Amino acid sequence: MAIILYELAGADPDVRFSPYCWRIRLALAHKGLAVEGLPWRFTEKDRLAFAGSERVPVIVDGARSVADSWRIAEYLDEAYPDRPALLGPAAGRAHLRFINAWADASVHGAIARCVIKDIHDVLAPQDQTYFRQSREKAFGQSLETVMADRDTAGRAGLAAALAPARMLLRQQPWLGGAAPDYADYILLGSLQWPRCVSSFTLLAADDPVAAWQARGLALFDGLLANAKRA
Amino acid sequence: MAIILYELAGADPDVRFSPYCWRIRLALAHKGLAVEGLPWRFTEKDRLAFAGSERVPVIVDGARSVADSWRIAEYLDEAYPDRPALLGPAAGRAHLRFINAWADASVHGAIARCVIKDIHDVLAPQDQTYFRQSREKAFGQSLETVMADRDTAGRAGLAAALAPARMLLRQQPWLGGAAPDYADYILLGSLQWPRCVSSFTLLAADDPVAAWQARGLALFDGLLANAKRA
Repeated sequence: MAIILYELAGADPDVRFSPYCWRIRLALAHKGLAVEGLPWRFTEKDRLAFAGSERVPVIVDGARSVADSWRIAEYLDEAYPDRPALLGPAAGRAHLRFINAWADASVHGAIARCVIKDIHDVLAPQDQTYFRQSREKAFGQSLETVMADRDTAGRAGLAAALAPARMLLRQQPWLGGAAPDYADYILLGSLQWPRCVSSFTLLAADDPVAAWQARGLALFDGLLANAKRA
Repeated sequence: MAIILYELAGADPDVRFSPYCWRIRLALAHKGLAVEGLPWRFTEKDRLAFAGSERVPVIVDGARSVADSWRIAEYLDEAYPDRPALLGPAAGRAHLRFINAWADASVHGAIARCVIKDIHDVLAPQDQTYFRQSREKAFGQSLETVMADRDTAGRAGLAAALAPARMLLRQQPWLGGAAPDYADYILLGSLQWPRCVSSFTLLAADDPVAAWQARGLALFDGLLANAKRA
């Protein structure tokens, strides 16, 4: 029986763009587990009450439900120990957790400054109102103002935020080392988010992060490459 | 026989402030290995030629010499496998390497913008000329200009760079998890650098990173706390 994954969707239910949900899509592919994605929208918080969450991703695996991308990743390794390990040995997991925090704390804000109005524009009407109000309150600016300098300061801010990944990818092909692992899925998920909602070019063509992303797009028979874009 | 560690020193040979050398001081303490630190100055590149390096840290362990903090850390785990592991299992090492790259690429520049002239001022005269020329070329600005906004933009930039550590330290006591490991030594080394050369307050008093640093200062009988400050 496929694992059910509640995924953030746009007005077009086939446009799925949450970075946290993409982490789990990639994690499930890595484990070789079948998945059935269900579209979910920001204003459907009640639909996730069964899992004690107001946000996606949420998975349902038989009788079990799990919310939060990190806890889902931990669950998948616990529940499916015979499948390829996702998070690696518990001893080194704190370091992976740092990469998770880095993406959330340093990369996502920088991406939002490049595409936040594009995100808004792909949402269903009922979600647009919620999104604009909550994000404009968080930034203290209109969505249009947040993104106004994306050609200069926005792109430069993202390039700066990605500096550690760039440094590492000059030394090794994947953040995980010789092969991709959850560290790669974290950042691939982050970059899949703008990719699905916007045609804005985030990375310089000669950025090692762009070459790594291109390799990542091809993983799992083009799981990321074939995703529907708005 | 103690391991010899070449360490960057100021005009006062007892002021040792290189973040990379502090990583190794902490690493050696973690492994329980005796160390003899030798002061070294930027303009003494010839003294490191035997190790094929122009920069510290360089260690000499009997007949072996190793340069570069990451390679030294790897060497210590390889050469002393019976002592407490420093980098953890090789499988998860890529993630730790990311934290190393993050400190180098994101944190060090932000610290430099707060204390670069203070670093200059503690150096021996022959090093001051080298330091000013090389750093002003790298920044494209005078040292004084790089640091001019440290009370506002400088401190805010460092706070932003430390966001992933702050997020993680709200969830667990050390970057390594329940106990400190090389991830902690990396960032403790980064913060020991300004601590040794400047009285400028880098972190807000209520920053979880400041509370973590205070715990780190006490490690190994106050190795960091007792270091000589300029």
